[in-house]
Amino acid sequence: MNLLKVDTIEQVKEKLHPYFSGMSRTTEEVPLFEAVGRYLAEDLMAPSDIPETDRSVVDGYALKASETFGVSESSPALLELIGEVEMGKAAIHLVEPGKAVYVPTGGMVPGGADSVVMIEYVEKMDEHNLAVYGSVAPGAGIMRKGDDFRKDQVLYRQGHRISNRDVGLLAAMGHAFVTVFSRPVVAIISTGDEVVSIMEEPGPGQVRDINSYSLAALVTSLGGKVGTVALLRDSREDLRNMVQEALRRNHIVLISGGSSAGFKDYTAAVINEMGSPGVLTHGIAMKPGKPTIVGVIKDEHCCCHERASLIVGLPGHPMAAVISFRAVVEDFIRKYYFCNEEEPMTIPARMTENIHGGEGRETFTMVRLRKAEEGWEAEPIHAKSGSISQLRYGDGFLRMPALSEGVTKGQLVEIRLWNEV
Amino acid sequence: MNLLKVDTIEQVKEKLHPYFSGMSRTTEEVPLFEAVGRYLAEDLMAPSDIPETDRSVVDGYALKASETFGVSESSPALLELIGEVEMGKAAIHLVEPGKAVYVPTGGMVPGGADSVVMIEYVEKMDEHNLAVYGSVAPGAGIMRKGDDFRKDQVLYRQGHRISNRDVGLLAAMGHAFVTVFSRPVVAIISTGDEVVSIMEEPGPGQVRDINSYSLAALVTSLGGKVGTVALLRDSREDLRNMVQEALRRNHIVLISGGSSAGFKDYTAAVINEMGSPGVLTHGIAMKPGKPTIVGVIKDEHCCCHERASLIVGLPGHPMAAVISFRAVVEDFIRKYYFCNEEEPMTIPARMTENIHGGEGRETFTMVRLRKAEEGWEAEPIHAKSGSISQLRYGDGFLRMPALSEGVTKGQLVEIRLWNEV
Repeated sequence: MNLLKVDTIEQVKEKLHPYFSGMSRTTEEVPLFEAVGRYLAEDLMAPSDIPETDRSVVDGYALKASETFGVSESSPALLELIGEVEMGKAAIHLVEPGKAVYVPTGGMVPGGADSVVMIEYVEKMDEHNLAVYGSVAPGAGIMRKGDDFRKDQVLYRQGHRISNRDVGLLAAMGHAFVTVFSRPVVAIISTGDEVVSIMEEPGPGQVRDINSYSLAALVTSLGGKVGTVALLRDSREDLRNMVQEALRRNHIVLISGGSSAGFKDYTAAVINEMGSPGVLTHGIAMKPGKPTIVGVIKDEHCCCHERASLIVGLPGHPMAAVISFRAVVEDFIRKYYFCNEEEPMTIPARMTENIHGGEGRETFTMVRLRKAEEGWEAEPIHAKSGSISQLRYGDGFLRMPALSEGVTKGQLVEIRLWNEV
Repeated sequence: MNLLKVDTIEQVKEKLHPYFSGMSRTTEEVPLFEAVGRYLAEDLMAPSDIPETDRSVVDGYALKASETFGVSESSPALLELIGEVEMGKAAIHLVEPGKAVYVPTGGMVPGGADSVVMIEYVEKMDEHNLAVYGSVAPGAGIMRKGDDFRKDQVLYRQGHRISNRDVGLLAAMGHAFVTVFSRPVVAIISTGDEVVSIMEEPGPGQVRDINSYSLAALVTSLGGKVGTVALLRDSREDLRNMVQEALRRNHIVLISGGSSAGFKDYTAAVINEMGSPGVLTHGIAMKPGKPTIVGVIKDEHCCCHERASLIVGLPGHPMAAVISFRAVVEDFIRKYYFCNEEEPMTIPARMTENIHGGEGRETFTMVRLRKAEEGWEAEPIHAKSGSISQLRYGDGFLRMPALSEGVTKGQLVEIRLWNEV
């Protein structure tokens, strides 16, 4: 038994690092409309002050604030209206004492003015004369040049995942196109004599191929590209041929099933046949997900750049496969292909019951979230190994370190949302 | 002034309801791989019991549990091994007293057996004889037929938004294709003399067209399709022509800018020219977003089915435009096009400072989230009207009802995440 030889998730990361830390990333330019979910390949700085000039934030009259000090309903300030600023045009007037210029919201504030008083406080007596009934402080009604961002201020770091809320600011910065890291291509190979395609009706003892689909959905939403997809019987020969072919056309190869310590464990042997260094880890101290195999194949034919491919044997159980993927593969792809190590989003919730510690294994417990009187509560989903109901009801998961003594009922914990990547 | 004639968001919804409640939704079939982010057009029931037969959840030997009662290291149960179950095949043996059958994890449990004892507790003496050193309870090691789901149990309701975590279960149910509601096509028209395309360098007093992009990103991530996109100068003639054209080719028309009470407010007039009933609401009791215009145009040429188009004039300010979109248009699209009224996800956080109530207006305050010692804290982003830094740093927003007296520092509030739709 190699029960004692399992690695922690952290050890797996350390073992992988030397093979991928020097890897050069490829980039591509995409239209802003298609950039959501991609990862920036460069730091982005403000190209100029934003806004580029002082702008009015109200419909009103630009003037010197001091003219309005002490005015009241009964004693307004009387000013001469010398013109108006047109939207989208430079302000051409100079506001001297006793003068005012009309400025619409968003219009440029003319020289000489230090504030804009809202139209509500002004009576237009005739074409050229205003009575101002409200007083304003210097700066009122004005957004200053550079108030939002200063020229060359870093707005985004390399590796940032572009979300739909970033699109507005990227547009404001003039980025009709952005340079992002290319999507790694990921092969997904399912194995198992009992596994049939999802279009087939499973016979006695058979199950549909869930993993190809659930892993493909995760790869895609993470920003990767699904390459080779194959469903194989348990045959060492077929697996070897398929993995060899997949290595040629994909950056990462995922194999699900066939990695338990049972009869038909060809995965590790096949990975070792592909090249060096081969299998780095045969079993991870995590629950679920222990029978995860991690291997690396260095590309010997590539002289100038170090290149290596990751091969991961994931458990066959649908839930264990996706948990393993998230704990090992997802972080790997984000770090080495996308230069992204942003902390994942978690939400605080109170556990509805006690959870045991993992007895030396890092533990992932799927939970269902419910609104409590204040905040959220998290109910662990108890499911036998192999159950797929967790797939339906798991809103997120609790991650407990290997040496955790568990969590007690009512304790506030951080839940990682299932959908958030 | 029509300050007093504004509607609440709730009133807007009530006004819209009669025009859209009877609208028939169109549907389409999409491959499961492309279903993420779409909305189910039908209830989905389990097509059979899942699992379909009793299955082993361990590698072990199927037997009658009673045979193992009272066994120990020194006095094992001695059983005859009569065969093994092959993965993916029906179990053919009948387990009688004194007999056992090998079953791999996931294999079908043979008739007569009521439990599976793990290989760790069994010594295989020769090809036909086993010594069992551990006792098991009936049901141990077995996942029963229907344990996950019963045949015809409703797993998903019509209107459910398919997320990447649903894909595995849909695959398990055999849905290689799913029927989803069609995407409504949304026109996005930006107006304003000061607005230039994002590819252009803004001159003095000009700004780039942020809204086309930020609204397009929201429409897309919500599951809609961006149709007509146009940037117009402030011209009533141009706007009328463009809206007329857009109504022909889109389900929903969004116009941003031009809806403040300033000089160049053609939007309401143009909506009224398009048909009846025209403008329903000119101003909403919300902050930001007050100058939002909501109109409906009934399609008179369509005799058999009631059809109507929504036209919304959104504020020109980038932040106000997206808040208005989320408060009014997003809920509308989810409800009438996707039959989806799922509660949006929120996370509890403590406010870092006092927030005033909205003085009769429903208030949306953008916040930046930070990890606190326990859970999250939410820092309101103070930004002048027109500021776009909220676009960068707003992780989510706090929604306060019109009559709220505000929120005090340290209070626990529910924050709606910006990216979650």
